[in-house]
Amino acid sequence: MTDPRQLGGGFAAATHIDRTGAGRYTATIVPGWDIAGNANGGYLLSIIGRALCDATGRPDPVSLTGHFLSPGKTGPVTVATEIVKTGRRFTTATARLETAERPIVVALGAFGDLDEGGGPEWSDREPPVLPDPDECVPVVPREPFPPPFMSKVELRLHPDDAGFAAGGRSGRPIMRGWFRLPGGEPLDGVALLLAADAFPPTIFNADLPVAWTPTVELTAHVRSRPAPGWLRCRFATHFITGGFLEEEGELWDDRGRLVAQSRQLALVPRG
Amino acid sequence: MTDPRQLGGGFAAATHIDRTGAGRYTATIVPGWDIAGNANGGYLLSIIGRALCDATGRPDPVSLTGHFLSPGKTGPVTVATEIVKTGRRFTTATARLETAERPIVVALGAFGDLDEGGGPEWSDREPPVLPDPDECVPVVPREPFPPPFMSKVELRLHPDDAGFAAGGRSGRPIMRGWFRLPGGEPLDGVALLLAADAFPPTIFNADLPVAWTPTVELTAHVRSRPAPGWLRCRFATHFITGGFLEEEGELWDDRGRLVAQSRQLALVPRG
Repeated sequence: MTDPRQLGGGFAAATHIDRTGAGRYTATIVPGWDIAGNANGGYLLSIIGRALCDATGRPDPVSLTGHFLSPGKTGPVTVATEIVKTGRRFTTATARLETAERPIVVALGAFGDLDEGGGPEWSDREPPVLPDPDECVPVVPREPFPPPFMSKVELRLHPDDAGFAAGGRSGRPIMRGWFRLPGGEPLDGVALLLAADAFPPTIFNADLPVAWTPTVELTAHVRSRPAPGWLRCRFATHFITGGFLEEEGELWDDRGRLVAQSRQLALVPRG
Repeated sequence: MTDPRQLGGGFAAATHIDRTGAGRYTATIVPGWDIAGNANGGYLLSIIGRALCDATGRPDPVSLTGHFLSPGKTGPVTVATEIVKTGRRFTTATARLETAERPIVVALGAFGDLDEGGGPEWSDREPPVLPDPDECVPVVPREPFPPPFMSKVELRLHPDDAGFAAGGRSGRPIMRGWFRLPGGEPLDGVALLLAADAFPPTIFNADLPVAWTPTVELTAHVRSRPAPGWLRCRFATHFITGGFLEEEGELWDDRGRLVAQSRQLALVPRG
């Protein structure tokens, strides 16, 4: 079994899986992919995505839902997958990322080949308007914030959305910016699962006394493998009600194509 | 075991479940809840919702994702549930609705008690503006369209979105209208799963040569049990690309509260 920490490349190595039996895999939650000791949710979904691509024999996640059950701590984990149905276009499967002690993420998804897509194209939305990456605000790790995770991804925030770190919340729960992997590491469909959960939470820009909104569930739809280059991303919350908020994401590639959408449900602590 | 067709009430009877063993239930796909012979997806999710409320011992679906694998035909089905984690606020579980021959829907969800919600309330969206129900367009079954399913729910469409049946597509993939159950049957959290998939597809209003968009996956977030009365609903598609479209729904109750959101991913045939 390969220790992913010894492989080249940040994301590919950190999501490396080894098959250990029928539908079973081992992986390692690599140090640095955490926020305050808990692995980033998109990173955990990416490990599951790798396992399900292998288990289903399909190259791409098409729709993947993860429920976040316990914090993912650094160290070895198991991914147990189960095929529910193998169809013509998609294979549908479940997965649990877990340790011997506890389940961390349970997931359900459809996997397929995004090259098989086609048909009419239409949209009433445009990619978010962002200043060039060099004119946006880089998110770089500092003590005590932002977390070391921000060295694993490369984020450049829209200046209008980046003031929260200095106490200048915009008042609108929106987070826009650019995403890529450091060192020119290419993005595949699985990397979009990471990008869908890599930005600071939209709640950081709300005028509300809420700082921490644990994710209950995140669903990502992947429409296309991204072209090389930066992703142009927009995350927004429209409804904080009933003790929950949603955060919906749109991820666009360098060709101006929507490559993924996400929506997560998060808990709003009662304060 | 009770035959749900002999119970009073349309929706409650049609989603009746009987426990037959640890986490296992039988139910019946009742005639009339289909579109061209295939049971409505929201109806199937509602049967699963009933089984998971019972299996988890929690009164409400909070987030439920279903993947639609095979058409649901009239007749007996089994729902096999499995608890993944019992937490303080939520119980997370999977379920398969199936016959002896094939899986029909596989689901993953978190169940809880919506009375436990609280905290700050904020939104930048308003309920959809609709004419009064009496000034909207009822959707009533006719041969060959609309299907008999439309007698199981009571829909009144916004006049601007209702012309498709007469060939007058609005050109915007939006569907707005009122929803309730016939005969004054009350709505609970599970009924919102039905409402999230009961309207004609948004594609019916697009200027595209596409008529049929099978659902791959639908996720519903339930924020609150609805107050008595009509639901005010809005479904919209923003991205038809890569061979897929999403349809996102907002369901508001008579108090003007957002009670549920939904998003589904559907296939766009290549034509």
